[in-house]
Amino acid sequence: MAYRAAIVGGSGYTGAELLRLLAGHPEIEVVHVTADSNAGNRVVDLYPSLVAAYADLVFHPFEPGDLDGVDVAFLALPHGQSQRHAGTLVDRVAHLVDIGADFRLPADAYEQWYGEPHQAPELIDRFVFGLPELFRPDFAGHAHVANPGCYPTAASLALAPLLAAGLVEPTGLIVDAASGISGRGRGLSAPSLYSEANENVAAYGLLTHRHTAEMELALGRLSPTSSASVLFTPHLVPMTRGILATCYARPTTEAAALGTDGLLAHYRDFYAGEPFVAVLDQPPATKSTAGSNTVQVTVRYDGRTNTVLAISAEDNLVKGASGQALQNANLLLGLPETLGLPTVGLVP
Amino acid sequence: MAYRAAIVGGSGYTGAELLRLLAGHPEIEVVHVTADSNAGNRVVDLYPSLVAAYADLVFHPFEPGDLDGVDVAFLALPHGQSQRHAGTLVDRVAHLVDIGADFRLPADAYEQWYGEPHQAPELIDRFVFGLPELFRPDFAGHAHVANPGCYPTAASLALAPLLAAGLVEPTGLIVDAASGISGRGRGLSAPSLYSEANENVAAYGLLTHRHTAEMELALGRLSPTSSASVLFTPHLVPMTRGILATCYARPTTEAAALGTDGLLAHYRDFYAGEPFVAVLDQPPATKSTAGSNTVQVTVRYDGRTNTVLAISAEDNLVKGASGQALQNANLLLGLPETLGLPTVGLVP
Amino acid sequence: MAYRAAIVGGSGYTGAELLRLLAGHPEIEVVHVTADSNAGNRVVDLYPSLVAAYADLVFHPFEPGDLDGVDVAFLALPHGQSQRHAGTLVDRVAHLVDIGADFRLPADAYEQWYGEPHQAPELIDRFVFGLPELFRPDFAGHAHVANPGCYPTAASLALAPLLAAGLVEPTGLIVDAASGISGRGRGLSAPSLYSEANENVAAYGLLTHRHTAEMELALGRLSPTSSASVLFTPHLVPMTRGILATCYARPTTEAAALGTDGLLAHYRDFYAGEPFVAVLDQPPATKSTAGSNTVQVTVRYDGRTNTVLAISAEDNLVKGASGQALQNANLLLGLPETLGLPTVGLVP
Amino acid sequence: MAYRAAIVGGSGYTGAELLRLLAGHPEIEVVHVTADSNAGNRVVDLYPSLVAAYADLVFHPFEPGDLDGVDVAFLALPHGQSQRHAGTLVDRVAHLVDIGADFRLPADAYEQWYGEPHQAPELIDRFVFGLPELFRPDFAGHAHVANPGCYPTAASLALAPLLAAGLVEPTGLIVDAASGISGRGRGLSAPSLYSEANENVAAYGLLTHRHTAEMELALGRLSPTSSASVLFTPHLVPMTRGILATCYARPTTEAAALGTDGLLAHYRDFYAGEPFVAVLDQPPATKSTAGSNTVQVTVRYDGRTNTVLAISAEDNLVKGASGQALQNANLLLGLPETLGLPTVGLVP
Repeated sequence: MAYRAAIVGGSGYTGAELLRLLAGHPEIEVVHVTADSNAGNRVVDLYPSLVAAYADLVFHPFEPGDLDGVDVAFLALPHGQSQRHAGTLVDRVAHLVDIGADFRLPADAYEQWYGEPHQAPELIDRFVFGLPELFRPDFAGHAHVANPGCYPTAASLALAPLLAAGLVEPTGLIVDAASGISGRGRGLSAPSLYSEANENVAAYGLLTHRHTAEMELALGRLSPTSSASVLFTPHLVPMTRGILATCYARPTTEAAALGTDGLLAHYRDFYAGEPFVAVLDQPPATKSTAGSNTVQVTVRYDGRTNTVLAISAEDNLVKGASGQALQNANLLLGLPETLGLPTVGLVP
Repeated sequence: MAYRAAIVGGSGYTGAELLRLLAGHPEIEVVHVTADSNAGNRVVDLYPSLVAAYADLVFHPFEPGDLDGVDVAFLALPHGQSQRHAGTLVDRVAHLVDIGADFRLPADAYEQWYGEPHQAPELIDRFVFGLPELFRPDFAGHAHVANPGCYPTAASLALAPLLAAGLVEPTGLIVDAASGISGRGRGLSAPSLYSEANENVAAYGLLTHRHTAEMELALGRLSPTSSASVLFTPHLVPMTRGILATCYARPTTEAAALGTDGLLAHYRDFYAGEPFVAVLDQPPATKSTAGSNTVQVTVRYDGRTNTVLAISAEDNLVKGASGQALQNANLLLGLPETLGLPTVGLVP
Repeated sequence: MAYRAAIVGGSGYTGAELLRLLAGHPEIEVVHVTADSNAGNRVVDLYPSLVAAYADLVFHPFEPGDLDGVDVAFLALPHGQSQRHAGTLVDRVAHLVDIGADFRLPADAYEQWYGEPHQAPELIDRFVFGLPELFRPDFAGHAHVANPGCYPTAASLALAPLLAAGLVEPTGLIVDAASGISGRGRGLSAPSLYSEANENVAAYGLLTHRHTAEMELALGRLSPTSSASVLFTPHLVPMTRGILATCYARPTTEAAALGTDGLLAHYRDFYAGEPFVAVLDQPPATKSTAGSNTVQVTVRYDGRTNTVLAISAEDNLVKGASGQALQNANLLLGLPETLGLPTVGLVP
Repeated sequence: MAYRAAIVGGSGYTGAELLRLLAGHPEIEVVHVTADSNAGNRVVDLYPSLVAAYADLVFHPFEPGDLDGVDVAFLALPHGQSQRHAGTLVDRVAHLVDIGADFRLPADAYEQWYGEPHQAPELIDRFVFGLPELFRPDFAGHAHVANPGCYPTAASLALAPLLAAGLVEPTGLIVDAASGISGRGRGLSAPSLYSEANENVAAYGLLTHRHTAEMELALGRLSPTSSASVLFTPHLVPMTRGILATCYARPTTEAAALGTDGLLAHYRDFYAGEPFVAVLDQPPATKSTAGSNTVQVTVRYDGRTNTVLAISAEDNLVKGASGQALQNANLLLGLPETLGLPTVGLVP
């Protein structure tokens, strides 16, 4: 294999998903995996599903020196930890892909939404916001990537064609989204229990979910006014994987003139050639994207209430996390962007 | 028992749920159940869960004469069928509770949303729209009830306190709702299959779901302007029972002044004494209502985007259908409104 | 209400289920609930589903004196704890119903299967093994009940008619059972997480599950040889509630002569008049019993392999725990055995 | 690509799963798909998950001539149909892989278990029973494959090492298995509905499931006595994919001497070098195999009841159907057996 990869914080779900995807990647080999809480255990003791690919891989405690000479390191750490380690790693490892939230926002926005000052504000600019379909040119001149959050990936891809073309007002955007339980990670907490989550739908994080900031940042950059405001309501639904983002926006007169057919055509143009975005006539379904790096999108214009409706579906652990991280790693390494990334969902 | 009941169209899920609830009702006895497609079969062959209560009950073909002298008949029929039978039944049976959609809307709205003229427009006024928490005074002078749809019950109870007090603009209301699969009924269709619905979330009926009309009717009646416009997006989520309605509205300055705490206090006043509405500080969860006739509601004011968010949860087969039907029957018969209706959800 | 009840250890799933059931019981009032880890919190903060029935009930720390004069105390504690408190309670409270495992087995069997000596062996005989359908006469002369485990209830009721009539060999019994995840309780552990349990079936506790001892005890008492040996394999399946026990036994020649029809007739005789056991021709389904105290049972004779197959279904939290506890409390208090206990399952 | 493939009956779940797997196969191209009931529709209209790989593929009506010159044809038809078409196809297509049940059993066993005479008994011998791990040498001299059933694959691989070494008695074998709902296919029927299957476990096909015959055939061939008898009890559990087979057998004294450790070592020897069988110490879990062609197996000896317990897990649509079909096609075409087949499960 051409490239050597490490995963820092590999015992959680995004780490395991990276291992699953990299098991099928022809040019990147996993040479090191850390997990402080599981250090010394074999990976397959935690994830027997990986036995055919990583029979002997063992979790190590995190030691920066162990990453020397690695081509790419994926950081799959709880928020706040990457910023503490990045100073040590940023010049030691050729490419960092931070799957966490630490380098996605400017320092002031980070402090506002996370309630604490950023520990390494001087490094933030060295990370590109890794949403290639919207910001691929930004990769030039960047060695490291801040991988977007799961909800912002889905919502931004649903709404981007509207904002970029000035078809909706950039304020008053509503993102009403549903996520599978794996979005809460592998940590132990009552709402993650099967008996609590099963046969249940509920909203959470009302008005205050931190992913709001990423959505406003990404969509604001696309907007003619350079800003956007979003009300974001996430929900938990009883499934393991998947995010559906149902988004509402107030159309400009141009969008009203286009109507649903014109908007769908605009979306197809906007995403032409993108291997991981499928624009559909019918409503997207999370199941269609399970295990794949594909995002499905559709759009409608409602003349009765003068509203634009845009919907997207993705697998929160793939395009919403580890798959997009691998897509970003491919870009950083100069590999074909699609290498090792499935585009067909596990159906049924 | 004091009263004798019949169920017309008793082999579907709303029929079975009525049988479950009536098994615990001290004053109403089920004396007759019809189901053309299952005529001749024992109820317990279709629903072994009912064996302890209805070991010998048999589905009969529908014959109007079989309902003579019945105190209350519940019609659990596909839309379009009740209006064909109502003429025969309306003076033959003391009280009809139509769980279907046939007598909920004025004739013109019915034709607009259902795409066909109403077959018995002269009877519509004889049915009261059976949402007691909002329209209890309307029961006076009515012998029959049109039971509201599952989504309109949830959405109307979530938004009613806002519209009734002029706290939000009655236009531009957004209802984004999720329903369990039982909302599709017991009919055979691909989207109802376990392997299609499991691990899947998708929207459906974009812009055109017929329950929109009921929401606009109910909320419009409460509004100072006597009208309301709603954009309604229903979703299917992988659970059997439950509806969650997440609703967005533009506040008046008065709502902004109240803020979240003031709105919650207003909701508690509005629903004071209602046995089936619980106003919560935390986000409602469908699971908390499973098997019960309770609706849980909360509300928020978002100053950042100047939006009001109202959320409700219910069991779509109980408060959203058969439980509310029984609540309405209790009212028609002069019984305590809560008789035979559980208010505690099946948790976990 | 006639009787006053306390629940000790009321914050877990069996405690919550007792609260749900007692909310509909006409003669027993809950006057006190303890939960050390949640002491001071309102019950409805943990279980919003209970808000309509217990709006003001608060969890207290366990203090034996708080139970003085209570008519019945339900102990819903982790195993090992009831035996530490029983000495204080056994003469202070009229009736104890221990839902845990502490008083089900003789002291030697307890030590063998639980790996530690029993702390109150002198009290064991004061508790009757509370499986009324099989051992109702034992209640005479007992003030306290050891409520059987969820699996032993299901397996014993499936196999009892065979052993009691000498229709199968009492050795070599195989019980292959599947349980919903709520059987693991509300404690936090990785296998209880939604993302681990969903879309997964696996066996656990191979060869060593402690419920084996209860099955051998109960079935041995019924057997002509006064003993029974059972190989028990439990599985976790992705649902919240329900146990299905599929049991295999070697028939005597008499069973072979009876055949399936004869065995079914024998089961109907054996359970005639039992309000909570339904003998079915078709295979039992856990869903049919959800939320109810009913056990469904069927039986087959396979001439091809000369084997008897017996299957039972129950709700593990009702007939498998809190429902049976209430059934036992009714018996202890001299109330009708069925009072407050639903027999119709929540379907769909 | 080197080889051209057709799928006959491609609109069901096994057809869709073949399309998913073949989308990632480097040497086999899908050139033709038939589906009489969906003829004329695009594949992606039925399966939007396939849009990235088969945007333009259309279902055709079945015409034998359309398969001329195809290298391999997968038959994914309801039982009874392959035997009607095989005469036309067997010399027209280089290799047939029949995923259905038509060529798995000798004609007499077929008639006994399927209740009707076989329509092409003279062709049965031209199909090898395609369970490579047990019968790989049989592929020599065969152009066509009868792909085993989902349950027989799981049960045979669980028990084979025991029978092949004479470690258990070949009679009185018990296979107690659980399957996800996708095993019922995409056909419309009440037990396949989400609202019926969810939160439910039940056995079906008691004593008479047709897969019993395949198990007895496969295990009998391995047994020193050349015969085996199996009592098979399948269950449906609420998940989409996965089969778990929990098997019981009576050990010979040699197995008792080996004990659990010796049996595990024997299993590791027996399956050494097999890329799709993982022998585990811990109990297998269906989720670990989701989407992959891997079977996980473990074994135990219970001295207390003198029983051997063997358990296997697989994805019923992959190793239990389409994955094994592709493995067999690889073998027929002289390709590496593992080509295009994932071995890592989709976890979580």
